[in-house]
Amino acid sequence: MTSTTPDPRLPSAEGSDAVPVTVLGLGPMGRALASAFLDAGHPVTVWNRTPGKAGDLAERGAAVVAGSVGDAVHAGQVIVTCLIDYDAVRSTLERAACDWAGRTFVNLTSGHPAEAREMARWTSSRGIDYLDGAILTPTPAIGTPSATVLYSGAADVHAAVEVTMRALGGTAVYLGDDPGRASAYDIALLDIFGTSVSGIVHAFVLAEAEGITPRRFAAFARGVGALLPEMIDRFAEQIEAGDYPGDRSTIVSAASGIRHVIAGASGHGIDVGVLAAARSIIDRAVADGHGADGLARLTTVLRAAQ
Amino acid sequence: MTSTTPDPRLPSAEGSDAVPVTVLGLGPMGRALASAFLDAGHPVTVWNRTPGKAGDLAERGAAVVAGSVGDAVHAGQVIVTCLIDYDAVRSTLERAACDWAGRTFVNLTSGHPAEAREMARWTSSRGIDYLDGAILTPTPAIGTPSATVLYSGAADVHAAVEVTMRALGGTAVYLGDDPGRASAYDIALLDIFGTSVSGIVHAFVLAEAEGITPRRFAAFARGVGALLPEMIDRFAEQIEAGDYPGDRSTIVSAASGIRHVIAGASGHGIDVGVLAAARSIIDRAVADGHGADGLARLTTVLRAAQ
Ligand SMILES: NC(=O)c1ccc[n+]([C@@H]2O[C@H](COP(=O)([O-])OP(=O)(O)OC[C@H]3O[C@@H](n4cnc5c(N)ncnc54)[C@H](OP(=O)(O)O)[C@@H]3O)[C@@H](O)[C@H]2O)c1
Ligand SMILES: NC(=O)c1ccc[n+]([C@@H]2O[C@H](COP(=O)([O-])OP(=O)(O)OC[C@H]3O[C@@H](n4cnc5c(N)ncnc54)[C@H](OP(=O)(O)O)[C@@H]3O)[C@@H](O)[C@H]2O)c1
Repeated sequence: MTSTTPDPRLPSAEGSDAVPVTVLGLGPMGRALASAFLDAGHPVTVWNRTPGKAGDLAERGAAVVAGSVGDAVHAGQVIVTCLIDYDAVRSTLERAACDWAGRTFVNLTSGHPAEAREMARWTSSRGIDYLDGAILTPTPAIGTPSATVLYSGAADVHAAVEVTMRALGGTAVYLGDDPGRASAYDIALLDIFGTSVSGIVHAFVLAEAEGITPRRFAAFARGVGALLPEMIDRFAEQIEAGDYPGDRSTIVSAASGIRHVIAGASGHGIDVGVLAAARSIIDRAVADGHGADGLARLTTVLRAAQ
Repeated sequence: MTSTTPDPRLPSAEGSDAVPVTVLGLGPMGRALASAFLDAGHPVTVWNRTPGKAGDLAERGAAVVAGSVGDAVHAGQVIVTCLIDYDAVRSTLERAACDWAGRTFVNLTSGHPAEAREMARWTSSRGIDYLDGAILTPTPAIGTPSATVLYSGAADVHAAVEVTMRALGGTAVYLGDDPGRASAYDIALLDIFGTSVSGIVHAFVLAEAEGITPRRFAAFARGVGALLPEMIDRFAEQIEAGDYPGDRSTIVSAASGIRHVIAGASGHGIDVGVLAAARSIIDRAVADGHGADGLARLTTVLRAAQ
């Protein structure tokens, strides 16, 4: 393959059929999205509430920075929002009269499912073609094979933007016509991410209080992190089977382990709020007679308390 | 290489110099340890508080099940304990008069550093050669290249058991003569593990409440879990540099994300104790003016509250 032959595995919208894309929101993720659309050859227009965030997108001469939301929407055929929350999306779109005729609105902002469904109603009442989405990937992965983006909403709207959205790379999964579906996955995945991050930063502080440098600690901590994907798969099987064998490790052992951590952290005066809350679920499982079961059994305790 | 040539990469204690090993404790981890010592050719004696836990170790005809702690200690040269906590170790060793002359005690029970140091004093006052240790690995990995075990305590004691302990496989790291050092790593690593597990089981329950089956959810959740090792390394660099760039994602964005999860979970009546505690750290960071920084900045907030 010579350098003049485009790599057929890479999405490219160069040429007469390149769909103009507008990105509203230039936080870290909005910038990554705009950059990926540019790389795929789309004409890109960007807008951000606070000016001056286009950075090298504008310098590369490729992205047009719109002066208003109305202008930004007008310049695009696929309008992508990536803002901090659905309220910001709504207030942004209400800033200006936008002409949505012939345009499609793809909202990649995180939120919970009820918000996504409400947004679908709001757009529907205005005749706007709407697709909801959720990005599961950090910014550097956008436009690469490791990206994952979920979509949900009207099938015809999804079909209309599917090729354009390929610019974001990797895996795109359409989850069906319930607009809340992508957000449902998103919040459950953010649950793992947010909780794990809180444990990771806490652990660095605890390690440091024990005189362990961040790099020394990370060398072992990354190994613990690497155990989680296999554990997630195993838990899924056990939850589906309703069988929680304690043959590898048990809840009563975990109860003991979390007590060691709390004792160690408390001894250094480090906040143990997250650990105490996690321990209370574990203790409830032991009190309910599940101490000899495996950790996936904790799901039944959380469910029972609903 | 023919089948009669032993693989030189595998530890083997077969022959006249095979050190007799005693394992006290036959929970999931104690059984895995005993099995690995057997596989490496050591004569193995086991004891457990509750009888009948030796399972296939005894069936394989290899391990001798001792009737008392005293007998078990007497049969071994390296005495390994793997019990639920240090109190259990202490009360176990106090059950019987044990003759420790010519023997080494390696305690692979999890605990916090003060407990390990106290155990070192307790053993020292009895003239017992003591080494503390911490296992960072799930049971199926014991005896394989992916195992990791940390040791700390007197260097000469470590040197005396080093070859024997190779039976556990993988990476063995000696952390120096402070007996609490292995436990210091252990609790900080358990911090990540315990907190992450609590997020994972919570997320399965939230996903299920949203009508997502465990297997469907796991397909994406494992990808989120797989992001953590790289993130741990990045956080370590940022914490060492004291620089927390928000170029990839910010604390204010995480504050919004965790609110979506709490709103979603609360809507289903699912306990949000862990999330609320995690949110309060994030909110404190925003209140302190760190909203535009990256998530590793949360370490300074936890530290400031100490
Ligand atoms: N970064 C990641 O790694 C990542 C990964 C997966 C998903 N996501 C999701 O992607 C979305 C965007 O994330 P992000 O990392 O780019 O940062 P973010 O902090 O969540 O969002 C920043 C964007 O929101 C805008 N914004 C905030 N409040 C606004 C308001 N009231 N009205 C209008 N615009 C407002 C900001 O504009 P100003 O510049 O004017 O403040 C900026 O454009 C979020 O939903 C996030 O959950 C991010
Ligand atoms: N399993 C893992 O994946 C894993 C991984 C890394 C580290 N570890 C560590 O390894 C150690 C052992 O873990 P485990 O998974 O085998 O299960 P565990 O539940 O932590 O420990 C079970 C063992 O402790 C004994 N025990 C409990 N209370 C006792 C007492 N008061 N007196 C005497 N013995 C007592 C049990 O005897 P009975 O049968 O009589 O109750 C059994 O032998 C723990 O410190 C754990 O943190 C485990």
